[in-house]
Amino acid sequence: MVKKIAILPGDGIGREVVEGAVEILKTIGHYYRHEFDFQYGLIGGEAIDQCGTPLPDETLELCKQSDAVLLGAVGGPKWDQNPAHLRPEKGLLNIRKQLDLFANLRPIQAHPTLQDTSPFKGEHLEGVDFLIVRELTGGLYFGKPSERTNQNGEEAVVDTLFYKRKDIERILETAFELARKRRKKVTSVDKANVLESSKLWREVAEEVAYRYPDVELEHMLVDNAAMQIIHKPNQFDVIVTENMFGDILSDEAAMLSGSLGMLPSASLSANGLHLYEPVHGSAPDIAGQGLANPIAMILSAAMMLRYSFHLMEEAGAIEKAVKHVLESGKRTKDLTNHPNQYVPTKQMIEEIKEAL
Amino acid sequence: MVKKIAILPGDGIGREVVEGAVEILKTIGHYYRHEFDFQYGLIGGEAIDQCGTPLPDETLELCKQSDAVLLGAVGGPKWDQNPAHLRPEKGLLNIRKQLDLFANLRPIQAHPTLQDTSPFKGEHLEGVDFLIVRELTGGLYFGKPSERTNQNGEEAVVDTLFYKRKDIERILETAFELARKRRKKVTSVDKANVLESSKLWREVAEEVAYRYPDVELEHMLVDNAAMQIIHKPNQFDVIVTENMFGDILSDEAAMLSGSLGMLPSASLSANGLHLYEPVHGSAPDIAGQGLANPIAMILSAAMMLRYSFHLMEEAGAIEKAVKHVLESGKRTKDLTNHPNQYVPTKQMIEEIKEAL
Ligand SMILES: CC(C)[C@H](C(=O)O)[C@@H](O)C(=O)O
Ligand SMILES: CC(C)[C@H](C(=O)O)[C@@H](O)C(=O)O
Repeated sequence: MVKKIAILPGDGIGREVVEGAVEILKTIGHYYRHEFDFQYGLIGGEAIDQCGTPLPDETLELCKQSDAVLLGAVGGPKWDQNPAHLRPEKGLLNIRKQLDLFANLRPIQAHPTLQDTSPFKGEHLEGVDFLIVRELTGGLYFGKPSERTNQNGEEAVVDTLFYKRKDIERILETAFELARKRRKKVTSVDKANVLESSKLWREVAEEVAYRYPDVELEHMLVDNAAMQIIHKPNQFDVIVTENMFGDILSDEAAMLSGSLGMLPSASLSANGLHLYEPVHGSAPDIAGQGLANPIAMILSAAMMLRYSFHLMEEAGAIEKAVKHVLESGKRTKDLTNHPNQYVPTKQMIEEIKEAL
Repeated sequence: MVKKIAILPGDGIGREVVEGAVEILKTIGHYYRHEFDFQYGLIGGEAIDQCGTPLPDETLELCKQSDAVLLGAVGGPKWDQNPAHLRPEKGLLNIRKQLDLFANLRPIQAHPTLQDTSPFKGEHLEGVDFLIVRELTGGLYFGKPSERTNQNGEEAVVDTLFYKRKDIERILETAFELARKRRKKVTSVDKANVLESSKLWREVAEEVAYRYPDVELEHMLVDNAAMQIIHKPNQFDVIVTENMFGDILSDEAAMLSGSLGMLPSASLSANGLHLYEPVHGSAPDIAGQGLANPIAMILSAAMMLRYSFHLMEEAGAIEKAVKHVLESGKRTKDLTNHPNQYVPTKQMIEEIKEAL
C-alpha cells in the first residue's frame, strides 16, 4: 500500500536536510519494496512570503490527507521583526496544535564515535540512552492571556501556563507506555515546590503510575533535573515533562549526543497522524552552504518508519547506516574540530545511502 | 562600627553550613578588627514547627533591623505534604518578596583543582567565569492566578507569568552595571519566539543597552542557552534572565563548578538590605551526618562582605583561603570519587579557618 507522506521543508537548512530524508526513504522503498508518495507543502517563513501566513490551509489539508508528516525547520532573521501571527514559529506552533501533536519524543543517545568533540569525558557518557517525552500542545506556549497589559497604569505583560487534567494524564500515559517497552522507569519533571500546575502534574503522575505497577515512577524538580542530566545522565530511562521544561531540558540533553544536528524527534497525536522533525532549527547562519548535518532529519524519518508505519527493520537499517558512517569517520562540520575535515550535507546523505 | 547580621539557618544541612560561615566571619572579624553582631531567626520547616508559619513576623523584623541576612537552606520531607502556605519553600519565597530581593547573583567558576570529579574534559572548562543574574521576585513564582480551576466542567490548573516593565528594567540595569565591572558583555536569555513576556523583556533589554554603550548586549533563546552553557561555557560574562529560567540554568551551570556545594549567591534589594544563601538546598538525605560542603555558604558570606559591607580585601581573603584548601587536596564528600577520602563539614571549616 502506498504511504502518503507530507513533506514540509520550511526555511533555512530545513530544505537541505529534508532532501536527505526523502532520498533515504526512496532508497528504503526501493530495497524493501514500499511505495512512498511525497507531497510537498509550505510552512514557516516561506509560507509567509508566498501565502501571507505561516501555516496555509492547504498545508494543513495536505497533512490531514497524509499518513505522516516530515518537517524540516522554520524561522530566520528575515521574519524576526514580524508581528507574532506572521512569524514562522507560529506555523510550527499552529501545526502542533491543529494536528493535536501532544507528545514530542526526543531520544537522547551518546555516540562513542563522536567522543573527540564532546565536552564530556568518555566514561561519563557510558550507557546514556534515554527518551524525553515533552508535552507539546499546552502550558505557557498556548495559555491565554498572553499579552501586554497594565496594572494601575503601569505597563506589564502576562503569559499563562494552563493545563487540563486530561492533557496531563494523556502525556503521562504515553510516557508510561513507552517506558514499558524500555527499562521501565519514568522520571516526571516538575516544579511542584512552586507551581500549582506542577502539583496537579505530580498528583496525576501518581494516579497514572498506579495503573503501571511494573514501571517505576520518580519525581524530580526541574532545576535538579537540569543538573542531573549533566551529573549522571545514565540514571534516566524516560523523562516526561511539560512543554517549556521539555524545550529547555531536551536542548541541554542534546549536548550528550554531541550535537543538536544528531537529534531526531517524533510528535505523536492520538489519532495516528504523527509529525517528525529534527530538534534543531533552521540555522540561518549556515543555510544554503551545504554545511548542515542531515542526520537528525534522517533519524526522524527512521522514527516515522517505526512509529507511523511499524517498519521496525527498515527503521533499524537507517539507524545502523548512520552509525556505520559515523564509525567510518565521516563528519559534518558540527561534528568535528578539524577545520577542513568535514563532508558537505550532500555527501553525508550519499554516504548514508551507500551504507544502506 | 558594628555590623548586624541576621542568621537564618533553616533546615537540614542549612544549620551545619551556616555555622561554618559564622565561624569564618568571626575569624575575619578578629584579624581585620570588625565587629559582627549575629542574631538568629527562624525560617522554613523549623519555623513551621515552632511558630506555625514558614516566615514568622519576628524573623522579618529581625532582618529589617539588620545590615545583611545570611540564610542556610529550607525544606525537608517532613513538610512535603503540607498545604502550600505551610511549606518551608514558602518562607524562602516570602522573604525574597518581602525584602524585595529582586536580583539574585550566582557566580559560576570552574575550579581546575576539582577536575578529577568533573564530568567535563579539562580543556573545556578553561576560562569559565560568568555571573548569572536571575530575577527573583516575579514571573511564574508570584503571578496570580495560580490555582486549580475548571474549564467547561473539566478540572484544570493555571499559573501566571507576570512582569511589570519596571521590574524587567531594574534587573536588566543591575546586569549591565555588573557587566561594566567585568568583561562588559550581557547575554539576555528569553523565549521571545513564543512568550509575550519575553518580547517585552527583549524590548526593555534593548532600551537599557542603549544607556550602556560600553557593554555588549546579546539575546539568546533559553533552549539555546541551556545548550550553550554546556557547549561553550567560556563565551559568557553576565547572563541575565527571568526567575524560572534563572532557576533552571543556574543549577545546570553549577555542574561546571564541580558541585552545587560550591555555589554561593547574593540576593540584592534596591534599599541596600541584601540576603546571601548557597544555591544548594537543605539536602535532607545527608543532613546531620557532617557530610555537607560548607563552601557555598562560606563563599556566600564572602559575597556579603563584598556587596553589603564593601570589605573587598576580607572577601578576597576568604575566597583565597577556600582555593588554598581545595588546592591542598582537602575535599568534602560531594567533591571526591574516593569513598573514604573526604573530610567532614567541621574539618573543612577548620581548614578554611586555618588557611585564613
Ligand atoms: C521554534 C520554537 C518555537 C520551538 C519550541 O520552542 O518548541 C523549538 O525550540 C523546538 O524545540 O521545537
Ligand atoms: C527552593 C526553591 C523554591 C528555590 C527556587 O526555585 O527559587 C531554589 O530552587 C532556589 O533556586 O533558590
